[in-house]
Amino acid sequence: MKLSPWDTIEVKDYSKLFDEFGIQPMFPVFSESYLFRRGIVFGHRDFDKFLEARESGQRVSVLTGIMPSGPMHLGHKMVVDQCVLYQDKGVQTRVLVADVEAMATRGIPEEQARDLAVNEYLLNWVALGLDLKKSDVYAQSNRSVPYYRLAALLSGRVTNAEMTAIYGDLSPAKTVSSLLQSSDILHPQLKEYDGPHNVLVPVGVDQDPHLRLTRGFADKLGLIKPSSTYHRFMSGLDGGKMSSSRPGSYIALNDSTKEALRKVDNALTGGRDTAAEQRKKGGQPERCMVYELLTYHFMPEDKELARIHADCKSGKMLCGECKKILKDRLGAFMDDLRKKREKARPKVKKFTEEMFTC
Amino acid sequence: MKLSPWDTIEVKDYSKLFDEFGIQPMFPVFSESYLFRRGIVFGHRDFDKFLEARESGQRVSVLTGIMPSGPMHLGHKMVVDQCVLYQDKGVQTRVLVADVEAMATRGIPEEQARDLAVNEYLLNWVALGLDLKKSDVYAQSNRSVPYYRLAALLSGRVTNAEMTAIYGDLSPAKTVSSLLQSSDILHPQLKEYDGPHNVLVPVGVDQDPHLRLTRGFADKLGLIKPSSTYHRFMSGLDGGKMSSSRPGSYIALNDSTKEALRKVDNALTGGRDTAAEQRKKGGQPERCMVYELLTYHFMPEDKELARIHADCKSGKMLCGECKKILKDRLGAFMDDLRKKREKARPKVKKFTEEMFTC
Repeated sequence: MKLSPWDTIEVKDYSKLFDEFGIQPMFPVFSESYLFRRGIVFGHRDFDKFLEARESGQRVSVLTGIMPSGPMHLGHKMVVDQCVLYQDKGVQTRVLVADVEAMATRGIPEEQARDLAVNEYLLNWVALGLDLKKSDVYAQSNRSVPYYRLAALLSGRVTNAEMTAIYGDLSPAKTVSSLLQSSDILHPQLKEYDGPHNVLVPVGVDQDPHLRLTRGFADKLGLIKPSSTYHRFMSGLDGGKMSSSRPGSYIALNDSTKEALRKVDNALTGGRDTAAEQRKKGGQPERCMVYELLTYHFMPEDKELARIHADCKSGKMLCGECKKILKDRLGAFMDDLRKKREKARPKVKKFTEEMFTC
Repeated sequence: MKLSPWDTIEVKDYSKLFDEFGIQPMFPVFSESYLFRRGIVFGHRDFDKFLEARESGQRVSVLTGIMPSGPMHLGHKMVVDQCVLYQDKGVQTRVLVADVEAMATRGIPEEQARDLAVNEYLLNWVALGLDLKKSDVYAQSNRSVPYYRLAALLSGRVTNAEMTAIYGDLSPAKTVSSLLQSSDILHPQLKEYDGPHNVLVPVGVDQDPHLRLTRGFADKLGLIKPSSTYHRFMSGLDGGKMSSSRPGSYIALNDSTKEALRKVDNALTGGRDTAAEQRKKGGQPERCMVYELLTYHFMPEDKELARIHADCKSGKMLCGECKKILKDRLGAFMDDLRKKREKARPKVKKFTEEMFTC
């Protein structure tokens, strides 16, 4: 199996990641969050060290990234929910906009990258709970000389063979982007920022190569190795991989409520060919996108989710009824999110004007 | 033939560079400078465009680099002499200290790179005529966000195949250093600096790969392609290549006068085995390091140099007499340079403290 931050990957068996890459299985923690309770955050590296450092009163921080290269969708919401969880626990959070990476590796023009960063991502991040006053939100393109210098100097601490072992063959743009990502993760430990401390990076597992590279650099520089947690990917609504080239495969946070609900109507479910068959055999929630949406986002109540699971399996509840439950919650969520976005717009606009000053 | 900024190269036949790499032969210009008059500056790219722009009153500038990875020697003086020539003609000059490159590609520790930059290079540059008030002298490590951002974005404008065609296989450090060098050359054209204009880069021909890469970037970014001039390399005093691992192969500017004169005593000359043979056959100035030192540095008077050449060829003047002429001039030069360095020290110290603020 190959993990790559630049290709759409599909993980069939998450347990393989433990053996192949040394990712550790997640342990019980933060039971107030269904993302942890349900194993959606399924693995980690040194997360125990992060928690120990925090519990012993040492400085810790959380960092994650936004790639402004397409619409923000529900698959991106999981990392927001995690960051807001840490933020609300008083942990310093940093959110980087990987606009240089988007421009260099994906050819996104600068104006478009900024527009996506603001209107697709940051507005929704703030609507979902990110507090711009508490967080350090920055764009790679505008960060600082120490940040860039670190990225450049890291180039001298890795060979081509090591890069290839981690990423496969890399273009110059991907080489530079990897080094920038490493600096994103490590620069909070510079003397110009907060000095050595444990930085936690909650990410999708496709980003693990960046963590492996960065942990190696931390060792060589005498910095503290970053911790990381990994969450599962959501499936596409059609049961395939989510892909920005197929808008029907995901619900974008900027979709209209009507559009979002229509996508649920068209989503793949675990239903049978006929109502009669389903009543007899029961449904298959494990392959149902409606059930996945409830699990990952819209049904934090475990008992209610368990009831739906049981009633589906037993054939008691058919897909129409289940979809109605999801659509009620999704519709309310989308309406609420839109209102919160509009409320956030002036402060996000002001904030991002300052963020992109140079 | 391969040109490389990272390997010690020896050019046997400069005319091959015209055919193989498209470098143009230098034309008559700046006859007040023996470097131009004698063809030591032997080739160029678009130097005519630089001169035309300057003559028509457009903004132009000159940029060259210092690599703080070893002692500064007479081989480095030619580019200083050229920069001072432009500076004294009123052209804006920029001198970059490639400390990030020295650290990343050569593993020079930061403190050592700074020490070399100041005590080997900048003190001697100022002693040789660089005016810190007129020049923009900077360290890569401390330049600016727009400078670094440009380097990072350039990574998206070149493929591995193009990089390999220019440089051969590159480590991550050399990839990053090449992009930084391109940003060194191009960033003066950014809106944050002076906007689009012709930037001349006087260099040794080993640096031509950076120019080829950078000219390609300029085309893609809609900037003006840099111009460049190329000077010949000096031979080592022992007739081989100059090498920092053989201090006897070069006269370092920080050598004591005594040490410098001793190196001349040991230098390879074009003399014959015996005085009698030399009087009969004449000497061989074309393979004489003493004659080369006079030509490149210490005998700007063409008639006097021609007389020495003739008297050597005819056997009239033997090596001892010729060495004495060189040693008189070299000794005076070294004594004078030392005095000028000491005089420059306080202002260079103050300047470099500000240059390395972060």
